[in-house]
Amino acid sequence: MSDGQETRKTPLYDKVALIGLGLIGSSLARAMKRGALAGRIDGHARSERTRDLSMKLGFLDGAHARAEDAVADADLVVICTPLGAYEAVLERIGPHVKPGATVTDVGSCKGSVAEAFARFLPDGAHGIPGHPVAGTENSGPDAGFAELFENRYCILTPSPETDRDALERLTTLWRSVGSIVELMDARHHDRVLAITSHLPHLIAYTIVGTASDLESQLKREKADQASIVETQEVIKYSAGGFRDFTRIAGSDPVMWRDVFTQNREAVLEMLGRFQEDLVALQRAIRWGEADKLEDWFTRTREIRRGVVELRQAGRFIVTEDDGGAKE
Amino acid sequence: MSDGQETRKTPLYDKVALIGLGLIGSSLARAMKRGALAGRIDGHARSERTRDLSMKLGFLDGAHARAEDAVADADLVVICTPLGAYEAVLERIGPHVKPGATVTDVGSCKGSVAEAFARFLPDGAHGIPGHPVAGTENSGPDAGFAELFENRYCILTPSPETDRDALERLTTLWRSVGSIVELMDARHHDRVLAITSHLPHLIAYTIVGTASDLESQLKREKADQASIVETQEVIKYSAGGFRDFTRIAGSDPVMWRDVFTQNREAVLEMLGRFQEDLVALQRAIRWGEADKLEDWFTRTREIRRGVVELRQAGRFIVTEDDGGAKE
Repeated sequence: MSDGQETRKTPLYDKVALIGLGLIGSSLARAMKRGALAGRIDGHARSERTRDLSMKLGFLDGAHARAEDAVADADLVVICTPLGAYEAVLERIGPHVKPGATVTDVGSCKGSVAEAFARFLPDGAHGIPGHPVAGTENSGPDAGFAELFENRYCILTPSPETDRDALERLTTLWRSVGSIVELMDARHHDRVLAITSHLPHLIAYTIVGTASDLESQLKREKADQASIVETQEVIKYSAGGFRDFTRIAGSDPVMWRDVFTQNREAVLEMLGRFQEDLVALQRAIRWGEADKLEDWFTRTREIRRGVVELRQAGRFIVTEDDGGAKE
Repeated sequence: MSDGQETRKTPLYDKVALIGLGLIGSSLARAMKRGALAGRIDGHARSERTRDLSMKLGFLDGAHARAEDAVADADLVVICTPLGAYEAVLERIGPHVKPGATVTDVGSCKGSVAEAFARFLPDGAHGIPGHPVAGTENSGPDAGFAELFENRYCILTPSPETDRDALERLTTLWRSVGSIVELMDARHHDRVLAITSHLPHLIAYTIVGTASDLESQLKREKADQASIVETQEVIKYSAGGFRDFTRIAGSDPVMWRDVFTQNREAVLEMLGRFQEDLVALQRAIRWGEADKLEDWFTRTREIRRGVVELRQAGRFIVTEDDGGAKE
């Protein structure tokens, strides 16, 4: 099906270094192994447990306690840590990056990464920020799997000065693990993802926190049972829509802390627009403006149809027949 | 597995009348047929097309253009229309409800339904509001299926005066179609569902509308491409979290218009709490308070774990390995 299932005769890169061995790093390693895309793969993680587990899982040729040892002589370096660690990582590995090597990453913000690459990478290294739009709610090297990137978008954000050969080879790598590669301006990426991903996560985190506060309130105010939501009721009746939010709000806290810190401008702008719209609907509810509500809800059906048509929703729709819609 | 797969020797009700033949009504009819729970099932829908289609689909013994003709002589009447139609329906059928018959419904708000039952039902009829927490994003008699209620909660909200026998029989009906029945005060139901279902829907409707406005803005301001989101990009990159919201925001506009109109108080209260929390997180993002964000996001993981543990998330997790979490 995807190129990833073929095996190459010559690897795309003689040596790949992965900095960070979590869900994404370990999935990429597995996918590269499967397709024989790298001559060898070296990895770095701060935790010894993670390094040992990664070696045991068999997707690495070498695990290194020091990032610079993994990077030495590598043709491709992929940073797979949370965004907040990039500066420290780049400061460390910068002097050890081989001339002509490509350095990329898998983080969810790209403007800040482009700046960090420009600041810390030596002349002659090709910094190309990247973002595979794929993931699960699980973390760690044992959560990864080779198929994670199949039929998923991977957005690369080269600058006009980016070396064409380096870009082409990196594009081939992502296509070979099954991704659909798109090129985009880094700032534009950050705005698009702010609305399609960062804001939805922020909202899900918020409402799940709100609900959890409602539950704890019960424990403090047992006297007034009729007026508050009982413990476990929020979870029990979550099929009505809330459950979709809990899955999102189960995502990695450190990763998301960094996303909101680094994509602040775009997130705050999208959040401002969202708040205006929410207040407008709140007002319509308060004043019983039924037509206004119905018009809005009818309009949103269209974008759902678009999602379904683009087959983005594929497996989702077929399997998830269970609520949220009615209730 | 569930009782619904057995066939009864004696039906629970000799005659059942369904007012409204959409997803829920037609699913209930199918499930009752499968379990031989009703001697006969008569239905009413305003649209001739819906009545004809329902007869053709084979889950009805009779389809009636006038609700009162379906109700005549029925032992159980189930109102399956949008909430906004209840008053008109009850006004019409009230005088025709057989003494001793049970009248229930499947709507998502229960306080307003309890009031309407008290106002319109004749003495001797047993009004017991009900709410199966189940559904899909599809509507119409052809969208229904007998398994819809299996392993789903069905909340009944009897009053202290409700006839025990009538309640027991209705409970048996829902159990027989596979549901887990819970009894609850009507006002309490409305508060619990406001947080677990109504607010999530309102938020999903809002953000999908916000995103769709962002896209249309492009068409008006083509000159300034870098600053706005491109047409189709929102849909294209929806795997990052947004897609979950589009599914919810594809739900029936009329049904949800009525939910927000009828559960106004509870929805506005929960929305107020949510807004406070959202503004607090917004402020943390603006001021770069990374610790505050991480603490909040760590806390929300707990409630997700609760959902997973309660196996509410069952099929969901197994099949939906595709994003939202990382991105």
